[in-house]
Amino acid sequence: MHRTQSRHVTVEAHRESVRQLLAPLRNPDRIERLPLLAALGRGLAADVVAPLDLPPFANSQMDGFAIRSADVPDGGTELGVVAPVPAGAAPAELAPGTAAPIMTGAMLPPGADAVVPIEQALPAVFPAPGVPATVRLPAVPARNFIRDAGSDIRAGELALAAGTHLGPGQLGLLAALGFTRVPVYRVLRILLATTGDEVVEPGSPLGPGKIYDSNATLLESSMRQAGLHVTRTGISTDRPEELAGLLRRHAADVDLIVTTGGVSKGAYEVVRQAMEGHHVDFFGVAMQPGGPQGIGTFDGVPVLGFPGNPVSCLVSFEMFLRPALGSLFGSPAPRPVVRARLAEALASPAGKHQVRRGTVLPDGTVRLEGGAGSHLVSALAHSNALIQVPEGIAALAEGAEVEVWML
Amino acid sequence: MHRTQSRHVTVEAHRESVRQLLAPLRNPDRIERLPLLAALGRGLAADVVAPLDLPPFANSQMDGFAIRSADVPDGGTELGVVAPVPAGAAPAELAPGTAAPIMTGAMLPPGADAVVPIEQALPAVFPAPGVPATVRLPAVPARNFIRDAGSDIRAGELALAAGTHLGPGQLGLLAALGFTRVPVYRVLRILLATTGDEVVEPGSPLGPGKIYDSNATLLESSMRQAGLHVTRTGISTDRPEELAGLLRRHAADVDLIVTTGGVSKGAYEVVRQAMEGHHVDFFGVAMQPGGPQGIGTFDGVPVLGFPGNPVSCLVSFEMFLRPALGSLFGSPAPRPVVRARLAEALASPAGKHQVRRGTVLPDGTVRLEGGAGSHLVSALAHSNALIQVPEGIAALAEGAEVEVWML
Repeated sequence: MHRTQSRHVTVEAHRESVRQLLAPLRNPDRIERLPLLAALGRGLAADVVAPLDLPPFANSQMDGFAIRSADVPDGGTELGVVAPVPAGAAPAELAPGTAAPIMTGAMLPPGADAVVPIEQALPAVFPAPGVPATVRLPAVPARNFIRDAGSDIRAGELALAAGTHLGPGQLGLLAALGFTRVPVYRVLRILLATTGDEVVEPGSPLGPGKIYDSNATLLESSMRQAGLHVTRTGISTDRPEELAGLLRRHAADVDLIVTTGGVSKGAYEVVRQAMEGHHVDFFGVAMQPGGPQGIGTFDGVPVLGFPGNPVSCLVSFEMFLRPALGSLFGSPAPRPVVRARLAEALASPAGKHQVRRGTVLPDGTVRLEGGAGSHLVSALAHSNALIQVPEGIAALAEGAEVEVWML
Repeated sequence: MHRTQSRHVTVEAHRESVRQLLAPLRNPDRIERLPLLAALGRGLAADVVAPLDLPPFANSQMDGFAIRSADVPDGGTELGVVAPVPAGAAPAELAPGTAAPIMTGAMLPPGADAVVPIEQALPAVFPAPGVPATVRLPAVPARNFIRDAGSDIRAGELALAAGTHLGPGQLGLLAALGFTRVPVYRVLRILLATTGDEVVEPGSPLGPGKIYDSNATLLESSMRQAGLHVTRTGISTDRPEELAGLLRRHAADVDLIVTTGGVSKGAYEVVRQAMEGHHVDFFGVAMQPGGPQGIGTFDGVPVLGFPGNPVSCLVSFEMFLRPALGSLFGSPAPRPVVRARLAEALASPAGKHQVRRGTVLPDGTVRLEGGAGSHLVSALAHSNALIQVPEGIAALAEGAEVEVWML
């Protein structure tokens, strides 16, 4: 069934439709347990509870002397120096009236409750081990320069929630907690089909009326960077039976089909035509660029039809597919969302959410790169951000604060 | 020669030292020409000049009718409809007094100078090809809905400068220009050595006084994400001869050695000791955390000695190694630098550049995650940004605007 509708949907509603299309892929069969490093960039598939305190034991924050703080009166005192506590050792109890040289990260000896940094000791050097020595130390409060057990996280607390994106910091925490493997969702396999009689592979001769296919490179690299596995059909001509054949050949082996082009209202719309008899809707999203969109299933496989211009493709990926995947699987990471001030005024179609390309500068302003045209791939290549101009806004003045997604 | 210095250097000066240490690696012998997709995340090793205009030819921005604008007087007129121009075709000259159906992206027929969108035509549909038809069109200015050849970039212009980071947008531009390969710098090979008698591999039993090694995971994943090739020595104990042996075994096969721990002023500083007889300086950078740093060469191989706490490691990588590599090789990409307002007040040691961890929120504020302690790996795992508090600032109020690097 081919349901062509003229409904006009918001960016948020279409993003939610994409999410619902892919939600069945979030199921326990698709969870695998990977070594930490192999899980880099994936999303956590289950809550992780801390099996131990971090730090696991009270330890010294400085190189210095471990003492019983009650041993040192105001004005300081001289203490006998006992055996040093290197990091990694399990020290004996600190005898009253003594001071133990202690290194940063080393376990506080039982009985000790404070550390005096070496710089505050007299002499401000560690005595040679085994040689009887004393040291003069100032009074310090209990807990001075101590990192308490569990002061970062306590055993039994939620360390990372299901759906967390696993970057270096998160994997570092899992390692600190002693984990070697982590449950993550399997990588999604995407079938990417670019279309158009005007489109030729880079490297081929460029005849009149032809352009090189940039959509495939733009989207495949975006998808790879997002941790997705991509298979390409190669460029399909505008003959619907050719496109349908290419899709059918690969559909059984993928989780999602993404097409570019052929979803608008022209006389030759190959994706619309190839999807006849399948459950795919085509309609306009109130967004510029990237308005024409298709969504549904082809032979039971989820399919998204992106428009044909390169900027529209990238914006479709960033506005719909990336956030939907991130919200379902914790991967890819969401784009950092920040606020910046427009370096120049802009106009926007009031009835649409406009996405402009720009460069965020270190002074907190954002400069537009190129105009609104969806074919401006050179301007895109010189941008580091997508500027979000919500529906209902027709103009913004220089200096206006806007929401910006960092690319 | 072991040169221990007590000099105190700024963040910027140490970053420049790291850059100079690695600058000899930017040489023509290390350039390779890769297929576009394989170059994702690398840095461009030479300027790329556009070999053709983009768009390559004047084309239509809309589905509509191509006309000679002078043919339509104010108030509009009826024109005879000729053969349609699909995208990808090389159309014949447009006869005076006619209108050619034209699809988005299709080449403008010679003679035509404007496009009237289909929505403005009467009737607002394309006639069946081959059937004689006329269409009533309004007057439009010359160049209406035309994308001029070269309006994105012109042949001969600089498309991408040497040193550009190659993300999806940049690779998309190269594809649009017809390139299939691109010159990039070879991936740097890093030897990563974590040290400490207190440190054990995740998955092993954790004895008293011991902690799991999170530095290796934190740094290896950071480096991998940055496109670097990482070899690990495994954890070295605090015996200098063990560490030196591990480094010597791998040094010939790597471009850079990175160690963690053992660079401070305690009694057991394994990296300092292992580097005796090599050209390595150890000193404090005016930064918190991550102050103690080592830099030099070991058996002629560049070496960086990061401090031993996990947050210090990550901050050292982000503040020194990542920017130095990005500036030399165009890879990794720099961290997005934005401005945000502090959600709460903070204090900072006035004589040091403080780097705090935080979460940038969509409202443009940034929330601190954990305190200043360099052992707070759980707080790090819940952060998405590094907050930069420059040297000379002792306190910042709630609402103060700060520079933030997005992780």
